[in-house]
Order: sequence, then structure tokens, then C-alpha cells
Amino acid sequence: MIRVVFFDLDDTIADTSKLAEMARKNAIENMIRHGMPVDFDTAYNELLELISEYGSNFDKHFDYLLRRLDLPHKPKWVAAGVIAYHNTKFAYLREVRHVRRTLLKLKEMGLMLGIITDGNPIKQWEKILRLELDPYFDEVLISDFVGVKKPHPKIFRKAIGKFNIEADEAVMVGDRLYSDIYGAKQVGMHTVWFKYGKYADREKDYIKYADFTIEDLKELPEIVEVLSGEEKEDSDKKVHADR
Amino acid sequence: MIRVVFFDLDDTIADTSKLAEMARKNAIENMIRHGMPVDFDTAYNELLELISEYGSNFDKHFDYLLRRLDLPHKPKWVAAGVIAYHNTKFAYLREVRHVRRTLLKLKEMGLMLGIITDGNPIKQWEKILRLELDPYFDEVLISDFVGVKKPHPKIFRKAIGKFNIEADEAVMVGDRLYSDIYGAKQVGMHTVWFKYGKYADREKDYIKYADFTIEDLKELPEIVEVLSGEEKEDSDKKVHADR
Repeated sequence: MIRVVFFDLDDTIADTSKLAEMARKNAIENMIRHGMPVDFDTAYNELLELISEYGSNFDKHFDYLLRRLDLPHKPKWVAAGVIAYHNTKFAYLREVRHVRRTLLKLKEMGLMLGIITDGNPIKQWEKILRLELDPYFDEVLISDFVGVKKPHPKIFRKAIGKFNIEADEAVMVGDRLYSDIYGAKQVGMHTVWFKYGKYADREKDYIKYADFTIEDLKELPEIVEVLSGEEKEDSDKKVHADR
Repeated sequence: MIRVVFFDLDDTIADTSKLAEMARKNAIENMIRHGMPVDFDTAYNELLELISEYGSNFDKHFDYLLRRLDLPHKPKWVAAGVIAYHNTKFAYLREVRHVRRTLLKLKEMGLMLGIITDGNPIKQWEKILRLELDPYFDEVLISDFVGVKKPHPKIFRKAIGKFNIEADEAVMVGDRLYSDIYGAKQVGMHTVWFKYGKYADREKDYIKYADFTIEDLKELPEIVEVLSGEEKEDSDKKVHADR
């Protein structure tokens, strides 16, 4: 019997890849508008390279961008980047398609819901609260708060512990085959890979850990029903065999 | 002859005291709305105390608030505070009354304009850019970028150096008798105290350093004319005496 469905946050619940791309492009444009003497493509490609090296949660992107481009460190340009980035981020934050109806359906089915996400706790909660999705979730585990990142089994075990369930009573849904699917499978959860966003064609080495693959979240309730049904069937069979 | 008018930023150009108060109140309200178990007055007064101890540029206000109130460290509450704070800040940022007409008038009179402000360079530039006041100013000096704070004479000397003028060719306008007026007078600038906001009745020990006191920025062009006229008169007298 499935009792809890866990979700990853970025690009599973909150549509963040598209958002980040727009925000970064607008930031570069605004920096150039305020006098940064470099063409768009050079600056944008440098920023992408910087992000791939330092990670997307690094908070000195625009300062480092100026250093990497050998430009003077003008706080005005950094501010122009920060303003445009934030304006875009707040204006364009969206949930992934069919999130809300899926969460509601799962709730109606009597399931408990959780989030297991990497990242900065304040920034991750900011997305959840701005989207007003907090009432759907019974537990939210954020790696920088818990002190351990996906795919480390410890964050998944902690999640299970919060609900006081067995691993096979939980399903993990996420867009990353490595951190979400491989991670959850290690502790014995059921796994649903959400093939979506920039990781839709990456980390394929880990696809063997995905029990199901979906491209639309609304497929999820049926999968949970199937999983609960299978187990019921298993125990029916067992009862039968025992006779 | 006056050639440059320098302005402080917070509560001289940008109306920030009122803004900060509203933003902080909304932050506390939103933290309580998301479950922080404390009444508004207790939390708000603790926050004010914290700010008076750690300064308004400290970036862990809401984290420390939870610690001081012996509450669990829930990133959800911190995020609720940060969201409400930012929403308010961006929605309510205003310039002080008559800023724009005064700056325009001074420009028409052929004066150059500068800003000398304390604070974080990105945050200060953010205010200037969001208010779209950057085209009015020839130079912006921000203490955390320059490495020296008002009222230290060095930041005022650097400002004078940027324009290649003598100190008595400059006027400093600001709401703080200590950092703006006493600071600028030390290096020999003319000083105009803008009696406004929460410092309107503070630091009165330094009032002797104010050449003029105004309660509305639109009085400024006339003062600059008077100062330029006086000097002209002085040099006329000198010419006369030389005969």
C-alpha cells in the first residue's frame, strides 16, 4: 500500500529551468543597458560557464562575471543584473503543468505528500510559498537544512522517518535520474521519473532505477493506484498460497 | 562659485525609513500567518531591537529573530519574512518629495551632481536604478565600495577628487547631522541639513556644522544661488578693494 508520495521541487513542481534562463538573459540585457561594454552572447555564454562551474545557488554570479570578462567591478552593473534577475524570477515563477490537479487528486486518494529537494532552504521555501503550494505538503525536506544532499540515502531515510512508514510505502517523483530516482531506489522506495526539462536526456545510466517514466504529472495517480493494487494482489496471492 | 551638489541617499533622495518600517511589519505579519507562534508586538519589538544592535544592513535579521525568541529555526518562516519584506520594498520604494524637480532645476543651473552614501553598493544602486535616478548623477560614492564610511573625511575628499574641484565649490545635502553635515564640514564643504525622517530630532550636538536647514528639497536651488552669489560678492569686494 502506498501511503506517501514525495516530490522533487525544481522542474518537478516549480518550473525553474525556463525561469532561470529568462531571468539570466534579462539580467545580462539590463547590465548591458546600464553600460556594461560587452556583447550579449559573450556575456551570456560566460555566465552559463560560470554557473556550470560554481553551481546555480552561488550568490556572486554577476560579480564573478565582471571578473571573468576583465571588466571593472561596477556595483551599478551588478545591481542592474540583480534587479532584472529578481523581477523576472518573481514575475515568471510557475508551477509545472498539472501540478495542482495532481496534488489534489493524490490528497483525495488519502495519500500524504512530501517534498525532498536540494538547495537553499529560504530560496526553496520562497518558491513553495509564492506558488501557495505549502498547504498540500505534510513534510518538506531541504538538503542544505538537513545537512545531506540527494542522492545520499540519509535524506531519503529521514523523509521516511518523518512519516513513520516503510520505504516501499513511498513513491519518489523527480526529474533527475541520478539524485531523485537512483537516490530513492537505494533505500527501497518506488520511483517515478518525470522526464521533463533540461534533464530529460541526461543521466541515462541511471534509468534502470526508474520503475515508471512519465511526461505529464497527471499520470501519477494511476501509477500510485497500480502500485497499491499490485501489492494488494501480492498479498492476495500470498493469502491464496497459504490456504 | 558652487559647482557640485552632493546628496546622501537614504531619506534624502530615497524615502527609505517609511519603506523599511512597512516592509518589516509586513514581514512579521507574514511569518505569523505561516505559523510562527508569537504575537505581533513581541516579534516586531524584538526585530527593532535586533536591528538597532546589528544594523539595518545585516542580512540574517529573520534567522536571528527566531533565535532571540527561542523559536525553532524554520526556514519556512524565514522565507515568509523575506518574501513579504521584498514585496513591500519593491512595491513601496519612493523618492522623497520634490527630489526630481530639484535635481532637474540644479542641472538646468549647470551644476554637477553626486551621491555620497553609506551601505551595501548593490542595494544602494538598486534603489537608484529602480527609481531611475541614475541619469541625474555624475558620480556615486558608496562607502562599502570605497572602503570608508561617513563621516570619515576620506570619503568626502574622494568625492571632491572625482570632480577635480575645491571643497568650497561643493554643497553636501543630507538628513544626518553627524555623518552628512559634520562629515562634509570637516573637509570644508558647504552644508545643508535636510531635517526629515527619523533623524529630524537626533544628533543635535552637530547642528553647528549645518550652514542651512531645510525641510523641503525644493528650497535647495535658492540656497545654491545664495552661496554662489555670496562668493561672487566676496570676489567683487576683493576686486573693489584691490583698486
